[in-house]
Amino acid sequence: MKWNILALGRQFGSGGRTIAKKVAEEMGIPYYDKEIVEKVALETGFSQDYIEQMGEHARGKSEWSYAFSNPGVPGIMGGMSASDFLWVIQRKVILDLAEKGPCVIVGRCADQILKDRDDVLRVFIHASDQFRAERIVRLYGESEKKPEKRLADKDAKRRVHYKHYTGEEWGDTFTHHLCLDSSVIGVDKCAEMIVSVMKNG
Amino acid sequence: MKWNILALGRQFGSGGRTIAKKVAEEMGIPYYDKEIVEKVALETGFSQDYIEQMGEHARGKSEWSYAFSNPGVPGIMGGMSASDFLWVIQRKVILDLAEKGPCVIVGRCADQILKDRDDVLRVFIHASDQFRAERIVRLYGESEKKPEKRLADKDAKRRVHYKHYTGEEWGDTFTHHLCLDSSVIGVDKCAEMIVSVMKNG
Repeated sequence: MKWNILALGRQFGSGGRTIAKKVAEEMGIPYYDKEIVEKVALETGFSQDYIEQMGEHARGKSEWSYAFSNPGVPGIMGGMSASDFLWVIQRKVILDLAEKGPCVIVGRCADQILKDRDDVLRVFIHASDQFRAERIVRLYGESEKKPEKRLADKDAKRRVHYKHYTGEEWGDTFTHHLCLDSSVIGVDKCAEMIVSVMKNG
Repeated sequence: MKWNILALGRQFGSGGRTIAKKVAEEMGIPYYDKEIVEKVALETGFSQDYIEQMGEHARGKSEWSYAFSNPGVPGIMGGMSASDFLWVIQRKVILDLAEKGPCVIVGRCADQILKDRDDVLRVFIHASDQFRAERIVRLYGESEKKPEKRLADKDAKRRVHYKHYTGEEWGDTFTHHLCLDSSVIGVDKCAEMIVSVMKNG
């Protein structure tokens, strides 16, 4: 098999995570999500909530204050910001997991972190705003912020983070092998197409 | 069938045209290419060579001199540049062809020209530079310019033209339903995937 690893980026609410899980199931390979958070938590001392939230978001003021008030990491960040430290460790965890064998990794700039490997299929899932707004309300419930605002905020954070740490544009056609609009193709069909490429490879 | 029309954009040398032809054949629907050039030639008086070359390229000085020296179009351009006039007529031809029924149209900003229709599948095909360089030398032969330079020049012209007339980024993930890298997925497999989406729709 040519494709050992699926690195899947996605717009918030596009169903990318669901697609990634389906592919992992169909291919019989591990889907890493919580494992990454747990490993990074172990190596950084940061809380899992913080890693989950900041692992794909740009650095902001709040993380600094968090970092300096965290008693778990005295002096181990070597002058780096909390965000940079998190990036370095998360990058190492992803590189190590990829070495372990076939797997699926969602987001976290894994497509760029693993770009020197030739067995990594780079996929990006996006969808219309309407599809995503309906989906996040159905899955995560209503919140004070309007769904459209939640989508825009989350996407903006991922875009800035991705650009900052990889130098590339988030969701760029030319750095991915497949970009799919799940709102017109369908979540199941997207998974099926990715599996078909991975098996065909 | 939800998808009546395939509007397929592509990087030079990516095999996009071949993929589009295969899809048209498989779907049993017309593939418009020469027809567009012929219709535009008929309505503008421009030569087919000129339309073929300029239909997807930005305006430059040479086209102006060409336009003003062309005895076939006295005074019908209404003060427009040759490029704008070509755009207006080519746009109309594409809108008319789409009205006629299911079809495949390659390039020419058809994805954006037809964006108000909900039965148009918007696909973009790209490929690695190496794949494309080898392909254009095999298909079109050597030339004085290095293949890499030919690719870069042609892509730049298409990008500038697309941006100028549609306001969008050429090959943008977010304005397409499928973006595929033919150099890793394979030309035949790309066609197969597009057909599968069109039939599934």
